[in-house]
Parts: sequence; structure tokens; C-alpha cells
Amino acid sequence: MVPPGIYTPIVTPFTETGELDDTALALNVRRYLASPLTGLVVLGSNGEAAQLDDDEADRTIAQVRALVPRGRPLFAGTGRESTRATIAATERAAACGVDAVMIRTPSFYKSQMTSDIFVRHFREVADASPVPVILYNVTVFTGVNLAADAVAALSEHPNIVGLKESGTDLVQLADTLSRMRDGFVVLAGSASTLHAALSAGAHGAVLALAGLVPDLCVSLFAAVRAGRHHDALLLQRRLAPLARAIGPTFGVPGLKAALDLLGFRGGAPRAPLRPAPAAAVEAIRAELAALGALETSDAAR
Amino acid sequence: MVPPGIYTPIVTPFTETGELDDTALALNVRRYLASPLTGLVVLGSNGEAAQLDDDEADRTIAQVRALVPRGRPLFAGTGRESTRATIAATERAAACGVDAVMIRTPSFYKSQMTSDIFVRHFREVADASPVPVILYNVTVFTGVNLAADAVAALSEHPNIVGLKESGTDLVQLADTLSRMRDGFVVLAGSASTLHAALSAGAHGAVLALAGLVPDLCVSLFAAVRAGRHHDALLLQRRLAPLARAIGPTFGVPGLKAALDLLGFRGGAPRAPLRPAPAAAVEAIRAELAALGALETSDAAR
Amino acid sequence: MVPPGIYTPIVTPFTETGELDDTALALNVRRYLASPLTGLVVLGSNGEAAQLDDDEADRTIAQVRALVPRGRPLFAGTGRESTRATIAATERAAACGVDAVMIRTPSFYKSQMTSDIFVRHFREVADASPVPVILYNVTVFTGVNLAADAVAALSEHPNIVGLKESGTDLVQLADTLSRMRDGFVVLAGSASTLHAALSAGAHGAVLALAGLVPDLCVSLFAAVRAGRHHDALLLQRRLAPLARAIGPTFGVPGLKAALDLLGFRGGAPRAPLRPAPAAAVEAIRAELAALGALETSDAAR
Amino acid sequence: MVPPGIYTPIVTPFTETGELDDTALALNVRRYLASPLTGLVVLGSNGEAAQLDDDEADRTIAQVRALVPRGRPLFAGTGRESTRATIAATERAAACGVDAVMIRTPSFYKSQMTSDIFVRHFREVADASPVPVILYNVTVFTGVNLAADAVAALSEHPNIVGLKESGTDLVQLADTLSRMRDGFVVLAGSASTLHAALSAGAHGAVLALAGLVPDLCVSLFAAVRAGRHHDALLLQRRLAPLARAIGPTFGVPGLKAALDLLGFRGGAPRAPLRPAPAAAVEAIRAELAALGALETSDAAR
Repeated sequence: MVPPGIYTPIVTPFTETGELDDTALALNVRRYLASPLTGLVVLGSNGEAAQLDDDEADRTIAQVRALVPRGRPLFAGTGRESTRATIAATERAAACGVDAVMIRTPSFYKSQMTSDIFVRHFREVADASPVPVILYNVTVFTGVNLAADAVAALSEHPNIVGLKESGTDLVQLADTLSRMRDGFVVLAGSASTLHAALSAGAHGAVLALAGLVPDLCVSLFAAVRAGRHHDALLLQRRLAPLARAIGPTFGVPGLKAALDLLGFRGGAPRAPLRPAPAAAVEAIRAELAALGALETSDAAR
Repeated sequence: MVPPGIYTPIVTPFTETGELDDTALALNVRRYLASPLTGLVVLGSNGEAAQLDDDEADRTIAQVRALVPRGRPLFAGTGRESTRATIAATERAAACGVDAVMIRTPSFYKSQMTSDIFVRHFREVADASPVPVILYNVTVFTGVNLAADAVAALSEHPNIVGLKESGTDLVQLADTLSRMRDGFVVLAGSASTLHAALSAGAHGAVLALAGLVPDLCVSLFAAVRAGRHHDALLLQRRLAPLARAIGPTFGVPGLKAALDLLGFRGGAPRAPLRPAPAAAVEAIRAELAALGALETSDAAR
Repeated sequence: MVPPGIYTPIVTPFTETGELDDTALALNVRRYLASPLTGLVVLGSNGEAAQLDDDEADRTIAQVRALVPRGRPLFAGTGRESTRATIAATERAAACGVDAVMIRTPSFYKSQMTSDIFVRHFREVADASPVPVILYNVTVFTGVNLAADAVAALSEHPNIVGLKESGTDLVQLADTLSRMRDGFVVLAGSASTLHAALSAGAHGAVLALAGLVPDLCVSLFAAVRAGRHHDALLLQRRLAPLARAIGPTFGVPGLKAALDLLGFRGGAPRAPLRPAPAAAVEAIRAELAALGALETSDAAR
Repeated sequence: MVPPGIYTPIVTPFTETGELDDTALALNVRRYLASPLTGLVVLGSNGEAAQLDDDEADRTIAQVRALVPRGRPLFAGTGRESTRATIAATERAAACGVDAVMIRTPSFYKSQMTSDIFVRHFREVADASPVPVILYNVTVFTGVNLAADAVAALSEHPNIVGLKESGTDLVQLADTLSRMRDGFVVLAGSASTLHAALSAGAHGAVLALAGLVPDLCVSLFAAVRAGRHHDALLLQRRLAPLARAIGPTFGVPGLKAALDLLGFRGGAPRAPLRPAPAAAVEAIRAELAALGALETSDAAR
């Protein structure tokens, strides 16, 4: 249900007045469909899900589903702080026809967010969800951690099929991989440790970077699968500077700027986020150029 | 506009089926009105604001405003992740007649949450808000920090009248107090450092503890105001164990359990939060008993 | 045995070839003796104790003791990583005639440094020490924390008479003060929270700042003792910028530069530490000037 | 000068009265010489270097060197807080004939420990050292980090030949590997991320685990070298539980207990460290048994 491979999150473009920009969204999605990426994720962290109203979220999911043909996996982020709001959002996304939902941990009441709480939450959501559930641990944004013991317990649930782990803690990743049930799929979320995560046994990745240089990311994945670790390592090193710039340094504004440089439609993020400053755009342009991505982009336009 | 003094946040009670419990909410509010507390805060962190739908939030604010007479300050939490959603929630709360809105920092995209971003966000909100704005820094839940330089800059805005600072960092508090404009009001949010914060110049506090033992908290405040620091210190030490139990240790579930022990209507928190375990309830009961709060409560019933 | 009041740590001056500079040390100590400071600490963190050989440490203690008259308290830092080395250093310092030893927590094996380990360590040292022991918690350098439960237990030992707590965590400080035995003396170590710590009940302080502006620090202490909290708070705010510059920002190099500006003999720190850069010296000079300390210094020369 | 491969640190055994136990040390070293390990490290963190006097340290190095034949690499830890003490210890170790020195970062004055300070420190040490220098970054104990930019700069020094990186941050490791000069050797120090580090390009490892199950560690290394990543991953998963127990959980006391179980001479650590509690010993015994290490040990005795 979660094919191994490389996925990209889709950003959510806005018009100049701050409304959803359906045209831009459709353009981006269509271009991804022509790439070798295994599938797409709508309303992940990079989709500014935290900043959308429920109505906007539902509409975005429906629009993307209408564009992505069945057979090409499409996952939707439907995590909310309360269990009941998460279930409600999940049911609405399932009604749109997404292949699975990717549900971040609740996180506001940090000191209460124990493994026991997480296990209860995800089990209740998975019991109610009409579609398979992918756990989503993204400590950099949530400030809480879904530990290996919780993942191991949740992997036994028949409707919980995988984990997206955005962290770079290889000790935790290896621990998780060694304790989960067979068939459970782990997708890495950090481009900076992509090779290390795949070497450790991760089955694929969901990467903002894959939305910029899909061919290189897919090549790295294929190299690891084929046991060509030296090639994979060289690719990892080539990708490292762009991975660093896109991820922690410049965030969603940087990703949207990079997409603009490549002929996609990124645009401005929603406030309080601000567009990437000029110096950041130049830094990103330099890294894209170093990877030959700008030429490809010109050709594609 | 923000009178110095001691405020309490109001919890949001739920029925057994998880809906808003209007009856319980009204009972709690009426009891607070009979206390010496300066004012009330609806939909702060302890009000489970993060777990309510917008409709539930609006309805809760309206109900509390209907119960609290004009002249008794009532503040409402209206912070959201996006600037536009924050403005929308603020306008709806203002229409209900709250005296001020208390707006937590946005926090999801942590590495982007710089002082510059915060200043722009709060200025735009304050420009649009029909009622005065109180900044709300609550790092323990948000994982981000509203630094003294940002508070100092925002204190110049005519519609930003104060700060609730929930942290225990006295260095930052002292720095903020020395740099803000005159007339700007700082309310502490941590009972464990109440005496220290008031000694450092804070003008009051918003404390869950004040919803349990309002007389003791008000006495401590009065002692500091009167320069009776030794008395204040003795009160601080008496309050310390309960402050510890209610705050970081047992969180909202503990606060709700404490309210139940005192004859208020706390009830169960919304999932994924769970009711405080039996051992926690006993620990809280012991601390309440040590302060003589249970007898008062019996008499009040 | 530990009179309440304001103490200063003594820096360790070096010659241009990196040897101990006895002349400079004597000059500094004599000047402190003419100040209103309650006492002195030799070989604290600011004394570069971590960078001295045992022979150098012993010699420094002996020299300072020869200069400081009986009746003026002199404490010596004698903490080492192992219990036996700590005891040996303590016995040597006691033989020099120091009034008490101030012993930092061991810290290298951080995950093993539990309260139980600390309690055993300090009890063994106190059992063996010919002079009273002052516990020394300095998390900013050690990376470990001597928690309130350990201090409370150790305060029962007849030869453990006090604590220097260098942290700024007022919650922990208040917790410690409420749990230790009567007569146990707590000295604060952070100038940035001096007023808050004294308000919370600390009995005095050991401050690098007090070695630069002793009169102001002693005045602040006296104001709190006399219940003149408003005066104390104004002094705290005046001292805040210099406190910030001297402490975390510029460290020992900054302290030595400040001493040079005031006519003491600071000199260069021992490598790998480097002299404060020119910009830091200018920043420190500006803060000293703002407090009127440079004029005093010129007059004193 | 630093052959790729698997190294183990040697613990420092003590007699019941707390003195160096030369007999036990010799027994341990001789047993390692019969193993397939590439080489040995004396007075690393696991050798309780922080708790030894200089005389004890020198004597331990001399004794081990006398036992280890030329051709079998022997490295000695000689890091101290000051540059001059580090150079002095390095010269004494070199005089004993060690093949290289492994020098941890100074760390006491944490806020001053910048890349610039580290680069100056290690260059001065390397200029003075008669033998090659291996940088040693062990943040878990020092609380400071030797960043990739500092390692890259230092790798250009002709007498700095390698790095032992004990951290588990694969992003930093990959960054370091991509920026250092050719020929510079990186040894991993965390068994929990051994496979990931070797996959990322590390040339070997210094592991406490390798002192317990040398054959398994060497097999894992060989599997990665031969491109048999699936085999390496299976070995990594087999080793994970013991790696977890030996490293962060039980520390030096756990390592010494494990050695005792295997017929080596571990004994008690020096106070303030305490022997591993009975429950820890049983947990370690279970993990050793699960790996078949106890049988091997019985046969070896």
C-alpha cells in the first residue's frame, strides 16, 4: 500500500491576495506526474498545512486527487491536535480518494505526549480511518518525538502501514527498523541523511529535495537498491549543499523560491512566513546551478 | 487596560461524549467571579484552545463574556498559526466583547520564527484588532521564544498593551522589563517563579494555580506590592509544591483533576490528553489539603 | 563559617611566557582587600583552575592566603574529577589555611552523574576535609546539574556548610532554599539574576562582577537586606549590561580585559583561551564607563 | 599512519585500594593482541583518563606500549584543558613510543570553544607533537562540538592525520567526510551508528563494543568493505542491543562489568563512578549471551 521509492511533498501556492491558487497548484502537480517520482504528498509540513483552514485543506486535497491518476500513490496530511479533529479530517480526505493519510503527532501539550498517549491516539485514528494510516514524526516542527517503542507497537495495527520519519537520528531509525513488524514501510524525511537512512534499511523517502531534483534523488535510491553504495555516496555528496539550503536553513520560503527558479509556481508563503530574502534566493540558485538543474528547467519550459 | 493583579485561566469542560459542557463552564466562571481574582482568561493554553474547532472556540468566548460583568477584565486567547487566521479569530472575539485578546506566538515553522517575523505578525494583528492585544510567550508549549528585543519593539505599538510571559527565565524577564515602554504591562505565567517575577517588576500574573487557591495568590501579590517580601517569600514556599504538581508535572489533566477536588467542574480533557492517573490525583489532593484548600472547598459547596 | 555577603573570584594572572605571575596576583588581591567585599574565592572557574597543574594551583592558594588576613573569608576551589584527587587537593588547600573549600561537581561522565553519585562524592570529600565544604554547581561549564534533592541531603552533613549556585534557574534555587537545613548558606553566582536570587532568599553571591564594581554590588545586597527592593531593582538594571558582557558573552578573557581597564592586572588567559578581541574590550569599556567605574579606577591608581 | 579498521579502547583496571592494577591491565591487553582488532587505544574516555593523575597516565601508557608489539597500532589519549598541558602530556606519550596521540577537545569554557579556538589549539599541539595527532570529538562527555569546518581546516596540517568522531550525527559526519583532505582518516566512535557511519565513508571505528565482541565488529567492517551491505545490516541489528547497553546506558561501569563477564579484568571504576548495579550486570549478561559471547569467553579461559 506504500510502495518503496521517492516521494515529494507538494507546496500550496497562494495568489497575491493570499487565497489558494488552483492554477499554480495544478501546474506543479502535472509537472511532477511527468517525473520518475513514485508518488506525492499533499498537505505535509512543506504544504503549509498548519496555516490552512479546514475548508482550504479539504479543497486542496480534492483538487490534487482529481489530477493524480489512480495507481500513482497520493498521501494527504490530516493530523490535528485533537483525536476527534484528526479523525474528522481523515474521513474527509478519504472521501476524496487519497491512497493513505500521513498523520503527524499531536504536540501542543509536550510534557503529556508520551508513547502511551501517542499509541492510543494513532490507534483510535486508525480504527476510524477508511484508508491506511502513515505515522509522521517531525520533531523539528513539533518538538516531540515518536519513539521506536511507540512505532513498534503501532506497526502491529492492520491499518497502520508505515512511518515517515523526518529526523536525522540514525540510532533511533535503526532501532525502529529492527523492532517493527515485517511489511511496515519506513520513509525517510531528511535529504541530508538520505543515503545513511537507505543504507540502514529505510524503504524510501519523502523529500522536498525530490521536488527540485527528482532524477538525482531517484538515482540515489536506485543505486542503494542495486548495492552500488559508492555511486550512492557520490550522489549524496553532490546533493548535500542543496539539501542543507532547502531544509533547515531556508524552510518553506526557500523551497518555494527554488520552485520558482525551476519554472514551477512556488510564490510567497502565507504570513507570518515571508518570501525568502534575495541572498537566500541567490544561494539556492547557485546550488541548483551546480547540480545542472536550471538548464533542465529551461528546457522543460 | 490591563489592570495589575492576579488572573486565572479558565479550563474548558467537556461532556462525557466530548462536547462543550456549557453548564460546567458557567458553574466554574460564577465561582471565580466570587473570588478576589482581578480577572479571567478564556482559551489560554490551559483552556485546551489548541484542541477546539473555531466554532467551539467562538461559542466558549461568547458564553464566558455573557457571564462576566463589564468591569471585570476578561481576556481571550485567539492565536493561530497564520496571521490571517489570527486576525479572523481576534475579530470574532472582539465582537463578543472581550476586553483584550491574548495571542500566543505562531510556532510551527520554528527555524523561521525570528524576532523580525514575530514583530511583523503581531503588528499586523494589532493593526487589525478592534481590542487591545496582549502578547503571549509560552515556550514550554510552542518551542519558540519571543525575545526581549521583539517585545520591546512591539511595546511601542499603541494597540499592544502587555505581555504574558510563561517562562521561568528571570534574566529574560528582567531584560524585557528594562527595555519596554512605560505603561506596558507584564504578567508572569509561572507560579514557581511568581515571587521572583513580581520582585523583578512584573505587574501581575495569569496562573492556573490562582484558579485553585486564589486567596493565597492574591495575598502573595499584595505582600510584594506592600514591600512585605518576607511574607511573600513564605507564601511562595507554601505554594511551591502545588505549583510544581499543577504545572509541568500533570498539565491540563492535573489542573482539571484539582478543580474536581475543589468542587469545580474540571472533568476529562479532550483526547489525546487523558484524565490524570489515580496517583496524580492523590498527589494533588495531598498538596491541596496541605494548603487547607479542601476545607474551604467543602464549605463553599 | 560562610558569612552572608558579596564575594569575588580572583583571576589567575600569567606572565608573557605563560607562567604564574605572582606580582600581578598580589596587586589584585591587595586592592580587593581595600574594597567592601565580604571575602574572596581563589581558583574558581574564573581563576582558570581547570587549566592549572596541581603544583600551580597549590602555589596560588598559598600565596593568596598569605596576603588575606584571618578574619577575611577566603575560599579555594579544589574540585577534581575523581573523589580521591578532590580529597587530596582539599587537604593541600586546608593546609594552606583557607577558610573553606568550594568544590565543583565532577562532570566528565555526564550520564552517570546522578544525585546519588553526587551525594556519595561530596560526603566522602566532606568526611575527609579538614575545613568546611561549599558545594559548587556551575552547569554552564560542567554540563551537569546538582539538583535540589542532592543539595538538601548534603546540607545535613555537618561539614558541608553552603552552596554556590551559578545557574539562573530561579525555580531550582527556590526549591533548594525551601528544602535545605537551617543555617546552610546559599551564594548566587549569576549577576544577571542577583536581585531575583537575593529576593528569593539567597544569602549572598560570588560574582566576577563584584571584582569590577564592588561598591555597586554591595549596595544592591544591602538594599535587599534593608527591604529597599525598588532601589535594589534600579541597581540591578544599571548592572545588567555589564553583567551580560562579563559573564556568558566574553568569559574569562572579557573579565581579564575589564580588570586591565580598571587598573588591576588581568593579562592574557592561558591557551586555548585567547585575549578578548578589540571589539569586546571596547564594549566592556563602554559598560564600565556607563557605570562610572573608569573614573574611580583612575583615581585609585 | 592510521590504518583503516576496528580499534578498541582499553579500560584502566584498579586494585581494591584504588591503585593502578598492572597485572589486570596486562592480562586485558594480551587478550586483545590475540584478537583480529586492528589496534588499541589507551586512555580514551573509557580508560577513565579524566580521573587519573598525570603520573598514573604516563605509567599506564608506558606499560601498554611495552606489551603491544610495533606494527600493531597503539594510540594514546593525551588531551588536557590547556594547550601547554596537552603538549606536555603528548611529548611524554610520544617518548613512550605510541604510534599516535588522540586528543579530545578542551571543553571547560564552553562558550569560548569556537572553531577558531579549536583550530589554534590543535595546530599548536600538532606543531609540537613528535607523533601524529588524531582529533577526538566526544560531545557526549565534553559538551562541545568540533564542527566540520574546524576538522576540514585541521586536516590540512601535515601532522594531523585523522579524527575520532564519537557522535551519532550523520549529517555532520557526511559533511566532514566531504570536506577534509584526501588521506585523512575518520574513525567512528558510536557502535549504534557503526554501519551507517561506515556506509557514509568512515574508515573504521574505535569502539568499546569491539573490546567485547571483536569478531562481530570486524565482520561488520569487512562486510561493508566488500559491499555486502545486507550482511552488514543484519550484523548491525544483532549488535544494537549490546551497543545500547554498553554505551550511553551503563557507561564505563557497564563496560567494566561486561569485561568481567567475559573473563577480562574490568573491576570497579574509580569514584565518584560506582560499579554497575546488579540489574545492569544482568542486562549486559543477557545481551552478551544473546550474541554467543559468553561461550566464546568460557572457551578462551
